Amino acid sequence: MKSYVIGFDLGGTNSVLALVDKEGGIAARTSFRTDEFEEVDEYVDRCAEVIGGLIERAGGKEQVVALGIGAPDVNYESRCIENATNLPWKGVVPLADKIERKTGIRTVMTNDAKAAALGEMLYGAAKGMKDFIMITLGTGVGSGIVVDGKIVYGKRGFAGELGHISVRPENGRACPCGRKGCLEAYCSATGVARTAVEFLETRKTDSLLRRISASAVTSKKVYEAAVEGDGLAREIFEYTGRILGEALADCATFSDPEAFILFGGLTKAGEFLLEPVVRTYHEMVFENYRSTACILFSELKEADAAVLGAAALAWTAGIDFK
Amino acid sequence: MKSYVIGFDLGGTNSVLALVDKEGGIAARTSFRTDEFEEVDEYVDRCAEVIGGLIERAGGKEQVVALGIGAPDVNYESRCIENATNLPWKGVVPLADKIERKTGIRTVMTNDAKAAALGEMLYGAAKGMKDFIMITLGTGVGSGIVVDGKIVYGKRGFAGELGHISVRPENGRACPCGRKGCLEAYCSATGVARTAVEFLETRKTDSLLRRISASAVTSKKVYEAAVEGDGLAREIFEYTGRILGEALADCATFSDPEAFILFGGLTKAGEFLLEPVVRTYHEMVFENYRSTACILFSELKEADAAVLGAAALAWTAGIDFK
Repeated sequence: MKSYVIGFDLGGTNSVLALVDKEGGIAARTSFRTDEFEEVDEYVDRCAEVIGGLIERAGGKEQVVALGIGAPDVNYESRCIENATNLPWKGVVPLADKIERKTGIRTVMTNDAKAAALGEMLYGAAKGMKDFIMITLGTGVGSGIVVDGKIVYGKRGFAGELGHISVRPENGRACPCGRKGCLEAYCSATGVARTAVEFLETRKTDSLLRRISASAVTSKKVYEAAVEGDGLAREIFEYTGRILGEALADCATFSDPEAFILFGGLTKAGEFLLEPVVRTYHEMVFENYRSTACILFSELKEADAAVLGAAALAWTAGIDFK
Repeated sequence: MKSYVIGFDLGGTNSVLALVDKEGGIAARTSFRTDEFEEVDEYVDRCAEVIGGLIERAGGKEQVVALGIGAPDVNYESRCIENATNLPWKGVVPLADKIERKTGIRTVMTNDAKAAALGEMLYGAAKGMKDFIMITLGTGVGSGIVVDGKIVYGKRGFAGELGHISVRPENGRACPCGRKGCLEAYCSATGVARTAVEFLETRKTDSLLRRISASAVTSKKVYEAAVEGDGLAREIFEYTGRILGEALADCATFSDPEAFILFGGLTKAGEFLLEPVVRTYHEMVFENYRSTACILFSELKEADAAVLGAAALAWTAGIDFK
C-alpha cells in the first residue's frame, strides 16, 4: 500500500490539510476556518477530526509517515507558535506536541516561508537543488534559505528574514518592523503601492494610475496599468526590480546559491518584475557568482504551494528520523 | 601515543606547517618562503620534506590523522587552487591531490578565511558554537560562515564573500572587485585609510593626521592618532564601525548567528572600532536578533590563527571521514 504524509497549512484565516504522496500528488484535501477557534484546544480537537478522516482515506495510520505543519511565528526548536500576530491564540502555543499527542502521528512544524522552500525543493522549481534561496513577495517579504539540502535555522530558528536586510541604509523608507530602508518596504506588494504613490506625487508624467485615488492604488492596479502600456507603471516595476536585483546580488555572497526562487502575489507581474531583477542582478553581483545563480519563479500552483511545503517538511523529517 | 594533525597555512609570502594536537597545542612548527618556488612540483617536494620531518616528530605516520591546508583561491570541491592572484603558480593547481599522493597523508584544503572560522570554532572565541560568522578585517574583508556546525560552501564553494555585500548602494566607493559600495571598500585596513583621506580633505578639523602626507596614512596611523585623543581619528573609527555594525545587522537576518567573530589587523583598533560596531548593530538589527548575537574579537594569537585554522580543518575532516 502507498505511503503518505499529511501537509498542514495553518494560516490566519484558513487551515488547509491534505494527504500528499511522495511525488506531490494530493490524494485528499480539507479546509476549515482558523479564526473561528478562540481556544487552541478546541482548534486541536477539530484538527484531530480532520486528520482522522485523512488517515482513514490513506488506509490506516501505518500509511501515514508524518505530519508537517507550516505556520507563522514558529519556533522550530521548541515546536511552539510564539506570539503570533495573525492567529487567535496568544503567547506560546506548543501546537506540534498537542497535535502529535492527540493523533499519534509524528509531527514537525516550521515557518511557512521555510516550508515553502522545502516544497519547492521536493516538488517545484528547486527540484534537485541543494543550495537555493526562496523569496516570497507578498504583503511582506519572507524567505527560506537552503544550504547543502537543509533549511538554515540559525541559533534560535530565526534565520532567513531577508525581508529585513537594509537596501537603502541612507534615507530609507520606514518598514513596519520599525527600522528603515528594509527590502520589504520596497519589494512587497505594499512596497509597490508605496512606490506608486511616491512616483505619482513627485513626477509629472501622465498615467492611468492618476484615475484612481492614492489610497486605492495596489500592486495589482499597477500591474494592470503596465499591461496597458502605462509608462509610469512600468517604471514602478523597473524601480522595484532593480532594488530586488541588488538585494539578491548581496544574498549571493552569503551562500553562493544555485538559484533564487521567487514566489507570492507580486510574481504575477511576470516579466515586468523579472526582467529588471535579472538584469540588475547580473550587473551588480560579485564576479564569482555572475555565471551561476539563476532567478526563477516558483513552479507550484499558488493554491497548492503552502500545503505541499508542509508535506515536504513531513517527508524530509521522515527521512531524517530513520 | 598521541594523535596529531598537520596544519598548513599557505600564504603568498610564507608557508607555515605545524603539528597540532586535538586541543590546539602546537608541538612543532616549520616555515619557509612560498615565493621562491616558481614550479609547483618543486614546491610540493619541499612541502613533502617538511611534512616528513613533522611526521617523524609525531612518532610516525600512524600518529598523523590528516593534513589541512588553508590557502587563497581554493575550490573546495575540486581540491584545487584556481587562478590565485598572490601565488607564483598560474591556472588550476590540484595541490591537495599532489600533497596527498606525495606524503600518503589524507589531505583537505579550503580557503583561508573558512579555515580561520573552523580554527575559531575548535580553539577560539567560537568554541562550542554551531552558528556564527567570522569576519576577517585585513587588507580586504573576508568571511567564513558556520551554520549548524558546518562551513557554508554553496553551489560552487564561493559562499561567504561578505566583503562584497553592498553597504552604500547609492554613490558608493569603488571597490577593487570592480563594483561600488562594497563593505570591503569601507571596513578593511585600506578602507580606513581611504576614509581618513576623505575626512582630511572634506573637513576643516585639526588633526595629528595632517602631519603626514595623504599617501602615508594607514589604519595603524589612524589608530595611533586615536590613542593620542585625536578627534578626527576617532571619528574615522566611528564611521567605520557604524558601517560594519549595519552590515552585521543585515548578515544576522541570513543565518541568525550566535556570534560574529572579528579577526585581522584592523581589530587592533580595539574599542575604537568595537564600541561603534556593537552600538550600531543593536540599534539597526531586526528585533528577533537584538538579544542574541554578540560581537567578539578572535581569541587566537594572530601568529597561530591561520595554522590552527588549517589544523581545525584537518581535525574536522578527520571526524567526517570516520
